[in-house]
Amino acid sequence: MNRRDEGVFTETWEAWPVKKNGTLGEREIIEIIQRQLARMPKMPIPFGDDVAAVDLGNGELAVLKTDMLVGKTDVPKAMGLWQAARKAVVMNISDFAAKGVRPQALMASVGLPRGLGRTDIEEIGKGLNAGAREYDAYIIGGDTGEASDLIISISVFGTAGRAGVTRRGGAKPGNIVAVTGPFGKTAAGLKILTAGAQTTTKETWDNLVESVLMPRARLREGLTLAKTGAVTAAIDSSDGLAWSLHEIARASDIGFVINKLPTAKEVQAFAKSNKLDPAELTLYGGEEYELVLTIEKKRWQKAKEAAENVGCELLPIGRVTTERSIILDVNRKKCAIEARGYEHFKTA
Amino acid sequence: MNRRDEGVFTETWEAWPVKKNGTLGEREIIEIIQRQLARMPKMPIPFGDDVAAVDLGNGELAVLKTDMLVGKTDVPKAMGLWQAARKAVVMNISDFAAKGVRPQALMASVGLPRGLGRTDIEEIGKGLNAGAREYDAYIIGGDTGEASDLIISISVFGTAGRAGVTRRGGAKPGNIVAVTGPFGKTAAGLKILTAGAQTTTKETWDNLVESVLMPRARLREGLTLAKTGAVTAAIDSSDGLAWSLHEIARASDIGFVINKLPTAKEVQAFAKSNKLDPAELTLYGGEEYELVLTIEKKRWQKAKEAAENVGCELLPIGRVTTERSIILDVNRKKCAIEARGYEHFKTA
Repeated sequence: MNRRDEGVFTETWEAWPVKKNGTLGEREIIEIIQRQLARMPKMPIPFGDDVAAVDLGNGELAVLKTDMLVGKTDVPKAMGLWQAARKAVVMNISDFAAKGVRPQALMASVGLPRGLGRTDIEEIGKGLNAGAREYDAYIIGGDTGEASDLIISISVFGTAGRAGVTRRGGAKPGNIVAVTGPFGKTAAGLKILTAGAQTTTKETWDNLVESVLMPRARLREGLTLAKTGAVTAAIDSSDGLAWSLHEIARASDIGFVINKLPTAKEVQAFAKSNKLDPAELTLYGGEEYELVLTIEKKRWQKAKEAAENVGCELLPIGRVTTERSIILDVNRKKCAIEARGYEHFKTA
Repeated sequence: MNRRDEGVFTETWEAWPVKKNGTLGEREIIEIIQRQLARMPKMPIPFGDDVAAVDLGNGELAVLKTDMLVGKTDVPKAMGLWQAARKAVVMNISDFAAKGVRPQALMASVGLPRGLGRTDIEEIGKGLNAGAREYDAYIIGGDTGEASDLIISISVFGTAGRAGVTRRGGAKPGNIVAVTGPFGKTAAGLKILTAGAQTTTKETWDNLVESVLMPRARLREGLTLAKTGAVTAAIDSSDGLAWSLHEIARASDIGFVINKLPTAKEVQAFAKSNKLDPAELTLYGGEEYELVLTIEKKRWQKAKEAAENVGCELLPIGRVTTERSIILDVNRKKCAIEARGYEHFKTA
């Protein structure tokens, strides 16, 4: 976990995400690109979900995912190369977790700035391997080349039964919306790392910073929950809780009433001592890898127990509604949850 | 095919590849990374070949490949965004061509510098699609994010029978070594684009520059040749002919005597008028996507005819030897073919 050499990475970690207008956002860019693409006939999973798939013809799908870590936007200064490489893997595996698909093998395409030494490259290799092995997967190949910044593009491969991929678009009114853990820690951790925010205890500091530097994909939880048949839609929360809710709402053509904010205990304390809004940290953060799931009411208990069996407390935070709005309804106050969060290109 | 906006890409196309010592080369970096990785049990294709694979358990392999195009090193100034995106796809498909595997679906992870407009993004989408559709494949997903330079990381998926992937390591002494077309055009084209080299006719200029801007993967040739059972080893020539020969030699533990240099006609003329060495342009170029294959002598005729059926003249250039040297033996002069060519990180 060596510290990154000063001087190699000249770019600084972007300020904490605030959506700005005027430039194209990540989703707009993806949509523009998608409009230029011929559709593969009988595409098992439509464009716009977290993974893509190819029909293998025997009732099975090959499931594919690719996502790129970029030093400038995804790697805070305090993060070492080992951690950055591991994160590149974890953020890809997190999408497989949300879809309930086991990742088998990964490919890594690595762009490196000049001047990295042997030890740096070893750290990258070790980080890639650690990320994969934590989730019982392997890096089986890849490529490398020169780039202006650290770029780690990971692609993941796995297989699933034809109905075995949890989509974004299956949420139904009446479903319970739940998350696999508390929120706001990465938002707080980044405020510590980039804006000098303070904590009252060292333990809290460690805990919040750790959430940024060592993200964990909820793979066991995702696989277990998918098997219950209770999950109607799921997504990870890498772009923030609010954004994840909006994505499910858009894909499923439903809305949400959220009546419990899953703010982490440490984040309550952190928000208080730093005079920050805990709801803001909980809803509009990002780089968090909890799963956001909608669950059939009648199978709630089954899902809850399945999660408990892998050590996860499934937290219900609200319900799916017919109306296309996403409402926060806590402490007898109602307000809309905005469609903002971590989105590249629109950050400050 | 709009021209790239000036100002967005501040980096210039690297000088024509000359290997330099002192820094880590691409292959060393790949080897350092590989040494950190746990091996997947029963890996169907070892590290270091052009593709990786996962056993699907039914006699079939999932074949995977990833490679990244970086603006700074892979996109000359004269190349538009449409062409750059298409090239990112073609260079990945070329590896499938060498292995004799049909690419079915591709994922694209795109890193974009700030300031690109809607039309630029459309060009990228159209280029990705064009590259895939030329080879009867589809882009089925991907992601986008901000980067300091244009980065297009492509991953390719296809399936093949367990014995249906042509390796680098199968060449046997006595085999004929052949290529799917003439060499040196991209080396000459880059000299025109980056060093102001001249041609005697406009037709030659167009032809040489086209070879750089619109590379073509030899997919039909690769698939057809693989089916003959005559090919013992293959690689594409994206790092140059000399480098490709060295890679096959290393993986197969053999050597070559090359007795015919496959220099393109236009390159002969270009070398003469620019006082350049045609052998240098032929052997030590790169970004060329011809296939370099070793072929069983007794099946040579079968391979030659199969190639002809898809409009390709298979050019024999020498033979595989037991000695681990690679010798150029033309015009009654013998010399060693060096292990240099296009390699990132060691370029000027």
